[in-house]
Amino acid sequence: MLRIENHASFGGRQEVWKHTSTSTGTEMKIGVYLPPAAVAGQKCPVLYWLSGLTCTEQNFITKGGAQQYAAEHGLILVAPDTSPRGEGVANDPAYDLGQGAGFYLNATQAPWASHFRMEDYVVDELPKLIEQHFPVTDARGISGHSMGGHGALTLALRHPGRYRSVSAFSPIVAPASVPWGQKAFAAYLGDDPVVWREHDAVHLIAKSQERLPMLVDQGGADEFLADQLKPELLRTACEKAGYSLTLNLRPGYDHSYYFIASFIGEHIAHHARALAG
Amino acid sequence: MLRIENHASFGGRQEVWKHTSTSTGTEMKIGVYLPPAAVAGQKCPVLYWLSGLTCTEQNFITKGGAQQYAAEHGLILVAPDTSPRGEGVANDPAYDLGQGAGFYLNATQAPWASHFRMEDYVVDELPKLIEQHFPVTDARGISGHSMGGHGALTLALRHPGRYRSVSAFSPIVAPASVPWGQKAFAAYLGDDPVVWREHDAVHLIAKSQERLPMLVDQGGADEFLADQLKPELLRTACEKAGYSLTLNLRPGYDHSYYFIASFIGEHIAHHARALAG
Repeated sequence: MLRIENHASFGGRQEVWKHTSTSTGTEMKIGVYLPPAAVAGQKCPVLYWLSGLTCTEQNFITKGGAQQYAAEHGLILVAPDTSPRGEGVANDPAYDLGQGAGFYLNATQAPWASHFRMEDYVVDELPKLIEQHFPVTDARGISGHSMGGHGALTLALRHPGRYRSVSAFSPIVAPASVPWGQKAFAAYLGDDPVVWREHDAVHLIAKSQERLPMLVDQGGADEFLADQLKPELLRTACEKAGYSLTLNLRPGYDHSYYFIASFIGEHIAHHARALAG
Repeated sequence: MLRIENHASFGGRQEVWKHTSTSTGTEMKIGVYLPPAAVAGQKCPVLYWLSGLTCTEQNFITKGGAQQYAAEHGLILVAPDTSPRGEGVANDPAYDLGQGAGFYLNATQAPWASHFRMEDYVVDELPKLIEQHFPVTDARGISGHSMGGHGALTLALRHPGRYRSVSAFSPIVAPASVPWGQKAFAAYLGDDPVVWREHDAVHLIAKSQERLPMLVDQGGADEFLADQLKPELLRTACEKAGYSLTLNLRPGYDHSYYFIASFIGEHIAHHARALAG
């Protein structure tokens, strides 16, 4: 782990680290925000943040405005890159496949299977690294935006016991049923839709045994709302499964980080409540 | 004026506009944040924000985290680009001269004089435009970062009656005495240091008649502190002139937007107090 950025921020430190990942076989970068309590050596819970299509570890840490709330609540924020990258790594010219579009799963198909193992990376390798290098409790929450909202929901649902709280902004709740997810799943997982469902939050909700505090925010003026996001499918699935969901529809808000910044304080508070003590 | 971006943000709107400037003879872009009060049609005071070297109208609006405080205090934020740009506009390969480095003055020397007229633009043309298109009071404040901190201080000092409050983050307080300013002033204004002084805050303080509420924040770990910024020169000049200055030195903070975001709330409150009523 090598620290490549280090900035004072709201009394704490916004850092960026890089390391060679055993999951992806590539160098990965991670944004880590340490609140004042962690800088002082106190153990803090960790909120993992998964970004959306085209993003790196930079987007959330520069535009999300989360640090002030993490400082206040004593939460460490960990924001990894969205995929493996580099010269030897498969890619696609489209923005929604390949580098910057890892979809938080382990690919099984060529040419992706060798490096695109973001589920192993986020769920296992990254927490181990963080727990070795920073003063953390064993309380983990997970959140994310768009493709990263899909990541947060599916990883929490697929790995009971790993997280104590989950939230998402503008998540792709039913990737097996919308163009972004269908394209990525066909490439990474092959043609069988039965396999896809295991990475689809709406499907996973139906068979989940665990109940986590779940908060979702969705902008009403989001340009991807009707075709790619479909939050009503999550609401229906939660109602059927008896899974308690707080779903806030925010009229006028779009898919951008301006939306995230406006409501990230409520998400940080949601996780802080669940992760305290 | 053509609106090219429009995002909901903290109950208000973050917009970006473009127009052809009579001052610079180029297309200029402007970030405009309208707090909820302005969206509802209520007249609000305006805080002008001037960004630093290499920046466009985007940096402050995406990374500054100012919108939440502007929403709370009912302040409109106006963040123009830092220079004229485009194919017919003179430029220099260095980051600290030419496009992205207008230094908020009217150039008198070739090849810069034809377009680099940022003082006219910021002080006259831009407020007229804003006052035509948005519900504003006649109360104006001005702030900025680094080169833009220089801009805020010098434009306020050079134009008595135009602004009611001024502040800056990490300003170049004595450009006539430091490398960034000397290089830019030689190019834009020619070789006579007597001319340079008319754009140097430390010199202008000595002869200022007006007294504005003045707030400056400076990071103690700023990589440009000793060679380019020298806030102690401003402190001494203010003491000699009997000009009241609040200068906050912030240990550990660097020159980045992480620093600005950490303290922009205090600057917004400073301006809101001066601009109210």
